[in-house]
Amino acid sequence: MERLKQQMNFLMEVDKVKKIIRQTYLADGSRKENDAEHSWHLALMCILLSEYSNEPIDVLKTMTMVLIHDIIEIDAGDTYAYDTTANKTKKVREIAAAERIYHLLPKDQAEYLRSLWDEFEEGITKEARFAITLDKLQPLLLNDQTEGRSWREHEVVLEQVLQRNQNTHLGSEILWNYAKDIIDKNVEQKRLPIGKKENEE
Amino acid sequence: MERLKQQMNFLMEVDKVKKIIRQTYLADGSRKENDAEHSWHLALMCILLSEYSNEPIDVLKTMTMVLIHDIIEIDAGDTYAYDTTANKTKKVREIAAAERIYHLLPKDQAEYLRSLWDEFEEGITKEARFAITLDKLQPLLLNDQTEGRSWREHEVVLEQVLQRNQNTHLGSEILWNYAKDIIDKNVEQKRLPIGKKENEE
Repeated sequence: MERLKQQMNFLMEVDKVKKIIRQTYLADGSRKENDAEHSWHLALMCILLSEYSNEPIDVLKTMTMVLIHDIIEIDAGDTYAYDTTANKTKKVREIAAAERIYHLLPKDQAEYLRSLWDEFEEGITKEARFAITLDKLQPLLLNDQTEGRSWREHEVVLEQVLQRNQNTHLGSEILWNYAKDIIDKNVEQKRLPIGKKENEE
Repeated sequence: MERLKQQMNFLMEVDKVKKIIRQTYLADGSRKENDAEHSWHLALMCILLSEYSNEPIDVLKTMTMVLIHDIIEIDAGDTYAYDTTANKTKKVREIAAAERIYHLLPKDQAEYLRSLWDEFEEGITKEARFAITLDKLQPLLLNDQTEGRSWREHEVVLEQVLQRNQNTHLGSEILWNYAKDIIDKNVEQKRLPIGKKENEE
């Protein structure tokens, strides 16, 4: 069965997602998390928090979106949210990765996952907006649990976090309000200083 | 908002799933995988392979089941499939864990996730059967990628793998046939010897 072989080949290739290390630490601070763990966490958040989406969403579609959104990082690598230089070449690297990796699958499934990734990147539909809200909220939660460890290591300032989260409210005003409280608390506790960085766009 | 606080508390508690180490190695053999990575992999398999389920299934329900089925291991630990002694106390440890962990959530969500876990454990519904098929197939795929490394380390024999997989065909005859080919190949390549172990039930 050629179709099943292609699917299995893809499923073994994406095992590499477990090796893509993010800059965010686990809640206990013991090590940084990887993309597979992050995606699992987002999918679970999607199940439990979809009731706070600004608009009713297709939960299965949104879960699928968050489960596959970081697969392109197998080739493109994880680009840290606050690394201005790397973010300039990010899009080109990621599109090449999407072309190769999703197309290991049978055509119909390749096109479906690729279209979901495009939809996530565009951030226009209600599902993409909610997925983006979760993708931005999760590292905030983990930074909060670890006394802002990833922020402090990279000398991230408040303005960068706010710019990074400028669309977080589009998926869920309720979750954005929750996120803002976390940000305010961390500013107050001097884990996230106020002050624009020179290299910020 | 008490409800949202409970949900966030649960979501931070289950971050510990990323620390529960399984006996199966990643496809590249570099280290053992953890429960969060395993669950992410199963959810992706569910999206791509549900077309091979013996009966049409509710994909969202099945994905949710696989995403949450190992959360009880935060308290109960990972019980290696071929550890006969530990498997005798497994059920009691896991039920206590389910009582504590799922009930960090608001009542309706706690009851839903708990009922999905019970359904998975019972293995009777079509969704539970397919989830179990995936849960058994995934470590076979990774063992195959790593030249049977986890089997060899634990001196697992063919009869144990077959007993462990006695219900795998109930979720999908097609995927079980694929699994059988993998098992046969590994027996042939001397990675999985034939021979009943004394302590096997």
